[in-house]
Amino acid sequence: MREALKSKLYEIIFEAETPEGKAYDVFLIISIIISSLLIMLESVVSIQMTYGTLLFRLEWFFVILFTLEYFLRLYVVKRRRHYAVSFFGFVDLLSILPAYASIFLPTARFLMLIRVFRLLRLFRIFKMVRYVEESGTLIRALRASRPKITVFLLTIVFIVVLAGALMYIVEGPQYGFDNIPESMYWAIVTVTTVGYGDISPQTPIGKLISSLLMVIAYGIIAVPTGIITSELSAAEKKSVKLATCPHCFSEDHAVDAVYCNKCGGKL
Amino acid sequence: MREALKSKLYEIIFEAETPEGKAYDVFLIISIIISSLLIMLESVVSIQMTYGTLLFRLEWFFVILFTLEYFLRLYVVKRRRHYAVSFFGFVDLLSILPAYASIFLPTARFLMLIRVFRLLRLFRIFKMVRYVEESGTLIRALRASRPKITVFLLTIVFIVVLAGALMYIVEGPQYGFDNIPESMYWAIVTVTTVGYGDISPQTPIGKLISSLLMVIAYGIIAVPTGIITSELSAAEKKSVKLATCPHCFSEDHAVDAVYCNKCGGKL
Amino acid sequence: MREALKSKLYEIIFEAETPEGKAYDVFLIISIIISSLLIMLESVVSIQMTYGTLLFRLEWFFVILFTLEYFLRLYVVKRRRHYAVSFFGFVDLLSILPAYASIFLPTARFLMLIRVFRLLRLFRIFKMVRYVEESGTLIRALRASRPKITVFLLTIVFIVVLAGALMYIVEGPQYGFDNIPESMYWAIVTVTTVGYGDISPQTPIGKLISSLLMVIAYGIIAVPTGIITSELSAAEKKSVKLATCPHCFSEDHAVDAVYCNKCGGKL
Amino acid sequence: MREALKSKLYEIIFEAETPEGKAYDVFLIISIIISSLLIMLESVVSIQMTYGTLLFRLEWFFVILFTLEYFLRLYVVKRRRHYAVSFFGFVDLLSILPAYASIFLPTARFLMLIRVFRLLRLFRIFKMVRYVEESGTLIRALRASRPKITVFLLTIVFIVVLAGALMYIVEGPQYGFDNIPESMYWAIVTVTTVGYGDISPQTPIGKLISSLLMVIAYGIIAVPTGIITSELSAAEKKSVKLATCPHCFSEDHAVDAVYCNKCGGKL
Repeated sequence: MREALKSKLYEIIFEAETPEGKAYDVFLIISIIISSLLIMLESVVSIQMTYGTLLFRLEWFFVILFTLEYFLRLYVVKRRRHYAVSFFGFVDLLSILPAYASIFLPTARFLMLIRVFRLLRLFRIFKMVRYVEESGTLIRALRASRPKITVFLLTIVFIVVLAGALMYIVEGPQYGFDNIPESMYWAIVTVTTVGYGDISPQTPIGKLISSLLMVIAYGIIAVPTGIITSELSAAEKKSVKLATCPHCFSEDHAVDAVYCNKCGGKL
Repeated sequence: MREALKSKLYEIIFEAETPEGKAYDVFLIISIIISSLLIMLESVVSIQMTYGTLLFRLEWFFVILFTLEYFLRLYVVKRRRHYAVSFFGFVDLLSILPAYASIFLPTARFLMLIRVFRLLRLFRIFKMVRYVEESGTLIRALRASRPKITVFLLTIVFIVVLAGALMYIVEGPQYGFDNIPESMYWAIVTVTTVGYGDISPQTPIGKLISSLLMVIAYGIIAVPTGIITSELSAAEKKSVKLATCPHCFSEDHAVDAVYCNKCGGKL
Repeated sequence: MREALKSKLYEIIFEAETPEGKAYDVFLIISIIISSLLIMLESVVSIQMTYGTLLFRLEWFFVILFTLEYFLRLYVVKRRRHYAVSFFGFVDLLSILPAYASIFLPTARFLMLIRVFRLLRLFRIFKMVRYVEESGTLIRALRASRPKITVFLLTIVFIVVLAGALMYIVEGPQYGFDNIPESMYWAIVTVTTVGYGDISPQTPIGKLISSLLMVIAYGIIAVPTGIITSELSAAEKKSVKLATCPHCFSEDHAVDAVYCNKCGGKL
Repeated sequence: MREALKSKLYEIIFEAETPEGKAYDVFLIISIIISSLLIMLESVVSIQMTYGTLLFRLEWFFVILFTLEYFLRLYVVKRRRHYAVSFFGFVDLLSILPAYASIFLPTARFLMLIRVFRLLRLFRIFKMVRYVEESGTLIRALRASRPKITVFLLTIVFIVVLAGALMYIVEGPQYGFDNIPESMYWAIVTVTTVGYGDISPQTPIGKLISSLLMVIAYGIIAVPTGIITSELSAAEKKSVKLATCPHCFSEDHAVDAVYCNKCGGKL
């Protein structure tokens, strides 16, 4: 009896196959979005002043709701430890922990925004398998080009360290380049073309070096794009289903192949 | 008789096949451009001071002209409701409504700039079918990669929410990160590499987090480019119509091929 | 006799085949670079104060030199009018005219920097035919995607006009959005991700609209890259030399073709 | 005996095949990272005030260590001159020289950060041959598109010089465009979409020119990306080794093909 209830609850809470399971997930996602917006609004001083008490109560309502849900999840799941250390288990826990930490350290409660990750369950409700597959394609494309990306990031590190040191020597603290870490922060802001302008070169030599750095960065910004584009194109080609040999059942024959390239039989 | 006039007017106003129809469209487009420039100029204080009355009169001249034209369009069109709820019907209406709203709320009249959308009729005059087709290719390319784009936008949302919350905690209101929505605005300004510099990190830890965010954004900016490029390349390949050989069933023959390049049979 | 001299001079001045012609071009290019640097330096107040007279004399030395050269070119060339209205003819003239205009309007002389275009002759000296070809590839790639680029630019115009009008209404002159042209300038600075920060949204609604604009721009920036990349890839494929049929001499057969796709003969 | 020791030391210091050689390299890399961080920290005033003496001693400890190591390398290597003028020989020397120069010119010591280049030895320890190959692919891709890149850079130079001169005339020193080199610096900051905002157009005409420049830059930024992407795609295709059929001479057979997919013969 109790096992049946647990199994039923498991179906509702963890799965989205049954109407109840789906309804539960929709309800959960709406709760997550509302509670996240509440946390954001709470940080706005003028709203906090007027609706502070209301927001505080609503926030704790959701915290208690999510806490109860977390324990319910732990209760109904079969492999408790497995859930607890899984990605979603961690996210579920980290979505409520900051609330309790905020009793001692008030600002900590904003870390509850980590609960936006719970929205990843969205994919399950809408059966967005294709979306998950696509993100798989993206991740595979990125993984395939890991060596290129490593070389690229190392190049960025070299450029940032050297440009940082050089600009610190050339411009120095009197022009805002207070120290090398600060100079390196400036170099990153420049190389990524963000360009806040909180620190900017003032001396002619500094401006010359910066100009060179920007033109180099202009070329470098093309590299990750080139990597990802060529990997994505390659991944797309692979995803095109190719003929299967009727003799040896080997796959991946070229579109214009006449004979199987594994057994030599006619396709 | 009246029907003949309506039909004639329809041809002039709605089509661009006859010389009169073409002349009407050219006149309309010039009117739209002039009236749009007038609205822009009217917002400039110094011009408003000197030429205010003239601009006011010219503006209302165009508003009345476009209003009359709107009713004329409604009069001559056969499927009145169909036009009224179509894209162009809406744009035509929204191009004049703000003028009347401005009687009560003066600044509303600048919304009349929505009339620039009427310029889309340009494509009809110059028979830029190819251009419309091309924009179709762009839109199809974007639609085909909707799952990838959704995954990408969701990633941006996650990064922006988390970076926003983190920076609000680390930097706080004393350094311009007034509240979480403000922090999220900063995160968007940073991730998109716009970098106004109206808000920028001041603490060492904030600068470190920002640096990481920028390098991550540097890689992420490559994703939409990669998606669109690979879709455009694929779309271009598909748009080339390929023949199949009726003898050996080989595919991918060039558009101008007469004989199969695999078996030599006539296509 | 005079004709022989003219012909010889033509060879030296206009061509780079003979050693004298090459030497002349090298001398010319060095003169152009030096005189351009002189003009740049002249605009620096501190240098102007100290070396003003020297710079003034050197500048006029080059102006007179280039003027004499321009008349010499006109003298030796056969089709005088043809040269005078050619690209290089115009550039050669525009490189000296501002000097004479500067007698009446001093700042006009900085327009002489238009002479950097004369550096395009560089390609001739170093016989950088391949470079010219490559720039041809770039230009052809751009021309091939003109319809896409037109659609793209029109999209930018629509976004900029609407975002400009909207932000002017939302933010208004009290926050730096002085008028619609100014607002449109801000929209361009934002959409292109330049982000000076001289004007930036101050109201919550303005920041929300800006955030949306930036995310949209983030996607739009991918479009020209996608267009150019796919055109360049296509252009590169075409440049691969393909088999010629020995029977009908048609070209462009696929790499793996066995029979000619025009006459059916064996390749 | 002495030769055996030299040979043994050579193996340890220059190679990473033996356990000792590997251990040595790991130790070296950790030393480089620590000493680099020390130099960075030393530039921070507050840290310098508190831990100045400690940092000074640690820094000189590493300088002496690296100096001894440099002489040891010179001692054990067979082709002394060859090492001294090699890339790594130069980097090893430049990693210590600034320390001695700093006795006369204190800020010079920050140039020691050039030692980050010694980290390139990382690739040797982890036998990241694939990474080196990949960076080779990147470099080859860049080299292959040198003509395109030259044309592109020359275009940038032309745009920057002309935009710089034009904006200096239009805006002038009263709006921060102090001189032409300064204006050119602004043009580079704008074209690369960095946009610090330290200098920004103030006059309506200046803003119009800037807007045009930004839209042009928006298109130009796509060019290097297009170049690198198409080269990378091409490089990837070439790197796949393809077999030719000995019977029918068809090419482009898959890497794992056993039979020709055109004539069915054994490869």
